[in-house]
Amino acid sequence: MKLLTLTTDFGEGAYVPQMKGVILSLVPEARIVDLTHSVAPGDVREAAYLLETTVPAFPEESVHVAVVDPGVGTGRRALALRFARRTLVGPDNGIFTAFLGRADEIREITETSLFLPEVSATFHGRDVFAPGAARLLEGGDLTIVGPVLAGEPILLPDLWAEGDRGVVLHVDRFGNLVTSFPAGRLAEDPDGALAGPGAAVARRAATFGTAPPGEPFLYAGSGGRLEVAVPGGDASARLRWGRGTEVAWERNPA
Amino acid sequence: MKLLTLTTDFGEGAYVPQMKGVILSLVPEARIVDLTHSVAPGDVREAAYLLETTVPAFPEESVHVAVVDPGVGTGRRALALRFARRTLVGPDNGIFTAFLGRADEIREITETSLFLPEVSATFHGRDVFAPGAARLLEGGDLTIVGPVLAGEPILLPDLWAEGDRGVVLHVDRFGNLVTSFPAGRLAEDPDGALAGPGAAVARRAATFGTAPPGEPFLYAGSGGRLEVAVPGGDASARLRWGRGTEVAWERNPA
Amino acid sequence: MKLLTLTTDFGEGAYVPQMKGVILSLVPEARIVDLTHSVAPGDVREAAYLLETTVPAFPEESVHVAVVDPGVGTGRRALALRFARRTLVGPDNGIFTAFLGRADEIREITETSLFLPEVSATFHGRDVFAPGAARLLEGGDLTIVGPVLAGEPILLPDLWAEGDRGVVLHVDRFGNLVTSFPAGRLAEDPDGALAGPGAAVARRAATFGTAPPGEPFLYAGSGGRLEVAVPGGDASARLRWGRGTEVAWERNPA
Repeated sequence: MKLLTLTTDFGEGAYVPQMKGVILSLVPEARIVDLTHSVAPGDVREAAYLLETTVPAFPEESVHVAVVDPGVGTGRRALALRFARRTLVGPDNGIFTAFLGRADEIREITETSLFLPEVSATFHGRDVFAPGAARLLEGGDLTIVGPVLAGEPILLPDLWAEGDRGVVLHVDRFGNLVTSFPAGRLAEDPDGALAGPGAAVARRAATFGTAPPGEPFLYAGSGGRLEVAVPGGDASARLRWGRGTEVAWERNPA
Repeated sequence: MKLLTLTTDFGEGAYVPQMKGVILSLVPEARIVDLTHSVAPGDVREAAYLLETTVPAFPEESVHVAVVDPGVGTGRRALALRFARRTLVGPDNGIFTAFLGRADEIREITETSLFLPEVSATFHGRDVFAPGAARLLEGGDLTIVGPVLAGEPILLPDLWAEGDRGVVLHVDRFGNLVTSFPAGRLAEDPDGALAGPGAAVARRAATFGTAPPGEPFLYAGSGGRLEVAVPGGDASARLRWGRGTEVAWERNPA
Repeated sequence: MKLLTLTTDFGEGAYVPQMKGVILSLVPEARIVDLTHSVAPGDVREAAYLLETTVPAFPEESVHVAVVDPGVGTGRRALALRFARRTLVGPDNGIFTAFLGRADEIREITETSLFLPEVSATFHGRDVFAPGAARLLEGGDLTIVGPVLAGEPILLPDLWAEGDRGVVLHVDRFGNLVTSFPAGRLAEDPDGALAGPGAAVARRAATFGTAPPGEPFLYAGSGGRLEVAVPGGDASARLRWGRGTEVAWERNPA
């Protein structure tokens, strides 16, 4: 199958096609799928969320390259890991937080013979991660990239809120707000509300077409998270909450 | 061949790659082409126009999934249809207006065994349409999805203007305005003009390089519609007309 | 392999999928990769830069179609050329400046039997370049498109600055500025600075993580050009320089 996805904050321009060219030069039959290139620049947490909710939808033996990499060219390590028979390749900066705790194998990418002959200081996506992932796409064992990771990988603490403080991880194209709270809060706490700057939302509905138009409501998002939407509107614009806004879960508000 | 296109209003983020993962998990050899994911949120008419002008360019036996679906989770029906040896899959909300009148077969998608095991209330693109289309990509007969549609499908009344009142369906990246009038109006009515808020355009030219720079002009668009452009400029910005602007065809203005 | 890339200024909408449909109808096994569709409208120079830095990353025998074509429908010629065992197809407007001087063969596309049956006045990407490139993807000799180009192709004079006056060719998603100066200026002239409207930048660093946060610096970009970035920030916003801004190299400023 040789299926590989790309997740970056590169947007449009030269960087993504350069990565694709490198991969296709090494593995001409590779099938490359864009996961997304619109991660907010440098927002490793948003990328970690997007990977968490999309990678499991892809078939086993797919390879997933993620490059949101503000630490490129510094001492940050490069990782390759196996999770649920899928392979992930990217920087050690928390971007794989959703998978690291359940990974079968985590290795540091150190084998320079896998890299392009010249490694730039600013673009390891093209020079390190793309060629390394291409070799893994050939079906190679993860051992080819380097040794088992020494010490712990970096993990993001707030991808899932455990207490009552959370954050907006992502805003989708409709202005729907995806939070770090699990959707289970809705059932656990039928009178709970989500509070943020200037507003608290307690109304609930199952879907957009069954909620009062124009009013924010809470619902169980399709990725298992607590989300906020405005039917026929834009919750982010309406509430003035966006990516990174801190929110709180208020249990049984008086 | 197993070629499938996707048309949505999802933009960037998790939804499109989730759909792709579902399709590739069911049909690993599927070849997925993005038609567009930049339909204005909820604008079924713009999606209907984009499908009309692009689907016929694709080969026979291709499958086309369209999800602009503000009614998701309500009672709106799901459709699969055959048109000119191509298969289309999406909601019954008018999105396939261009094809329904000439369809060879129209069925309602009701066969829940085709869906993902859990169907969310907000994302039938992933849970219903993607897996249903993947099964049809395998070459299956349309009968696998459910019964022949009972009653009439929803049709959009204004995808093609028949009288003198029309609308701007779409604005392209250059600011060119695509209207609901057929390009044939230009030949039928050599002195006609297109009127909209604050302006009427009567000048005509064959292409951008042969019209006076900076001045709006009418031309026969490459999709057979009456369009408005400004050479070297942006007709939408210049005229302050956009998607949804109502326009009128003025015959032989005095 | 039958690998083909597309570079346009079409953005999202109907034009790119129409081109893909035409290509796949002619060569169903074609593998199409989007190079980019976000060239600034009509900016042939930006497209020439993006092609220069990405095409060589793709494998030999790949075909590259570029359509930034403000002269469509006028007398501008259509080209097909061979460079380093790759094929390029597009208008004769300078878009292939990076390759023309070293091309093995340059032909004018005149063979109308390659085109779609009806050629519109405004969309040669779909009607001329896509079907022509599809035929070349079949492995045909370049001679099928038409005669060796008569006279000289159009070349852009300022894709690489030779003297002390240059320009910002492209701004990436991070706000990094890619200039027409070669990165070699940094080594040739260790005290040199880059001057533009309202500011001159002399600080240098190897990568984003090793420069002072918030301060603009010069570095050797991953494509061999002199670039400007602000660590953790946006150089374009900070300096108010953008695509097309004229910049100058100041040698040994006092």
